[in-house]
Amino acid sequence: MRAVLMEKGSLWVDDIPTPEPGPGEVLVKSIACGICGSDLHAARHTHDFVTTSREAGGAFKLTTFNPVVLGHEFCAEIIDYGPSTEHKYAAGQLVCSVPVLTRAQPESVGYSDQIPGGFAEYMVLSERLLLPVPQGIDASAAALTEPLAVGYHAVNKANLSGDEAVIVIGAGPVGLAVITALKAQNIGPVIAADFSPGRRRFALQQGADIVVDPDLTSAFIAPEIKQKNVVVFECVGVPGVLDNIFLQTPRDTRIIVVGVCLQADSIRPLIAINKELSLQFVLGYSLDEFATSLAFISDGRFNVENLVSHKIPLEQVAETFIALQNPEEFAKVIVEPWQTT
Amino acid sequence: MRAVLMEKGSLWVDDIPTPEPGPGEVLVKSIACGICGSDLHAARHTHDFVTTSREAGGAFKLTTFNPVVLGHEFCAEIIDYGPSTEHKYAAGQLVCSVPVLTRAQPESVGYSDQIPGGFAEYMVLSERLLLPVPQGIDASAAALTEPLAVGYHAVNKANLSGDEAVIVIGAGPVGLAVITALKAQNIGPVIAADFSPGRRRFALQQGADIVVDPDLTSAFIAPEIKQKNVVVFECVGVPGVLDNIFLQTPRDTRIIVVGVCLQADSIRPLIAINKELSLQFVLGYSLDEFATSLAFISDGRFNVENLVSHKIPLEQVAETFIALQNPEEFAKVIVEPWQTT
Repeated sequence: MRAVLMEKGSLWVDDIPTPEPGPGEVLVKSIACGICGSDLHAARHTHDFVTTSREAGGAFKLTTFNPVVLGHEFCAEIIDYGPSTEHKYAAGQLVCSVPVLTRAQPESVGYSDQIPGGFAEYMVLSERLLLPVPQGIDASAAALTEPLAVGYHAVNKANLSGDEAVIVIGAGPVGLAVITALKAQNIGPVIAADFSPGRRRFALQQGADIVVDPDLTSAFIAPEIKQKNVVVFECVGVPGVLDNIFLQTPRDTRIIVVGVCLQADSIRPLIAINKELSLQFVLGYSLDEFATSLAFISDGRFNVENLVSHKIPLEQVAETFIALQNPEEFAKVIVEPWQTT
Repeated sequence: MRAVLMEKGSLWVDDIPTPEPGPGEVLVKSIACGICGSDLHAARHTHDFVTTSREAGGAFKLTTFNPVVLGHEFCAEIIDYGPSTEHKYAAGQLVCSVPVLTRAQPESVGYSDQIPGGFAEYMVLSERLLLPVPQGIDASAAALTEPLAVGYHAVNKANLSGDEAVIVIGAGPVGLAVITALKAQNIGPVIAADFSPGRRRFALQQGADIVVDPDLTSAFIAPEIKQKNVVVFECVGVPGVLDNIFLQTPRDTRIIVVGVCLQADSIRPLIAINKELSLQFVLGYSLDEFATSLAFISDGRFNVENLVSHKIPLEQVAETFIALQNPEEFAKVIVEPWQTT
């Protein structure tokens, strides 16, 4: 089958063996699979990504010495069943799944050198983790289940009362997912800050009430946050952003750290102390939150109409990884392995 | 009057003018005044202390170009009243006060070059902030109101349900104040970690259930924290401690940052993200918490019997600031300006 391989920052399309579903597993076609910021990190900084992840508790089982097929934000189509399966869905049914294969040694789908991720024609998934995509929902919308679950989980962890002013720093896919989840619950005002005019446009489309260009003004002086409890969602994940939030944000702000900063970061605790700030670091989502994300996409509570900016074939993945270094034009890029170029 | 002056790290006893109480102010004798870790910081790193504090929001109005009389953990005795006062307490009454003078331009008592702090024979205080010390409570116990209010506030901000396992990192005066406040509310188990055998002894006296020497074992592997929600009080305030807690502590830990780290600190957000840690930075106390601290000292809920390890005259302040660099022998040091050497 055709797949995009990644090794130490290089990406190329190659023919690799189609995976065989083991006990309890299903063979699926990958129909639509989003490119995640973590995929870019993993490609650009493979060694750091692997070593820091391991030190941090081993969320990813990537290795640095074998090529890997990335892609963990997928919607797939049932093709065939392996042994010890219930054949729960008919062939042709669209499904989503959390990107985990529940083998004796669990595998992270999209970050494993043992099985392919979604940037390939076929994958294997665990039958018991499959969620059927309702009729009428297309695969690229369903592929947003995973990234939107991240935003939904972050908003849940923030435990909002509903009368806070919310500032979202960074309107890339993570920030847009957070805005989408906030707006599904009618929370606001939501002020989104991003240097990119394109991303500010996407933020408005997802329901941000105000967008600001940090080059021109600070989200933290917006009149809308006056007299309100402020909650900040940090959705950038590069060094220096946290300390900058410390400096600008008002007293008692709660900061939800959703952006994944792989490098060490320097903060000035005294600033956070003087303002009695709090930070909640968040990661991923629960199985329930993942299922809810698909349900909210299906019933329209999550506004996904404008979230997909590009759909590309496998052959354009490598160049798109480079193009995403300048994110101006991009919301979510969906890889369609069966798209004919 | 005699006072200890501090300028750019030097401390010396000198004669300075006795302050005159302004409108709404009271002239008091400083009877007992504790040495705080922040006083040591202010003396050793005056420039950094002043500039970082200002950038952080100006909690302290110290300057670097005038000598200052430190001392903000005081118990004082009423001597005389200034104009526009109510003469609420008789001369001779012991009082405490939050270390603030409510002038048009408020002054931090103990961090101002305009008025003396408690390391002097006399001070001026705002009448309306005075709290009378109940009969039978001695001045050195009452002088613990301020540092114990810091611990009490930190425990309040932690918003404990009561069934958490609590780890206190650092058993200096701040850590001991936190342990004292925890034990006043019967919260535990409390595991205290400190490299110093002397401080571990103090921690046990304050009610810590377990003490560990981080050179030999980690508080984070204590069997007592298994299956419990873990709350960590960071009471050290030097760079590297937070990241070390990130690395060692279990998933979902809540970290209360009470230690005041003046320098920039390096953290690895990915570790905190993978464990979904949260941080609450805390500072100071409310007026209510300060009053409660004095009440709890008075009614015995705060165990203060062993908290004061040394009582010294003004003449020994300079040498004690140096000796406190090696904290082995010290819990709280109380300066008694009227002590005769």
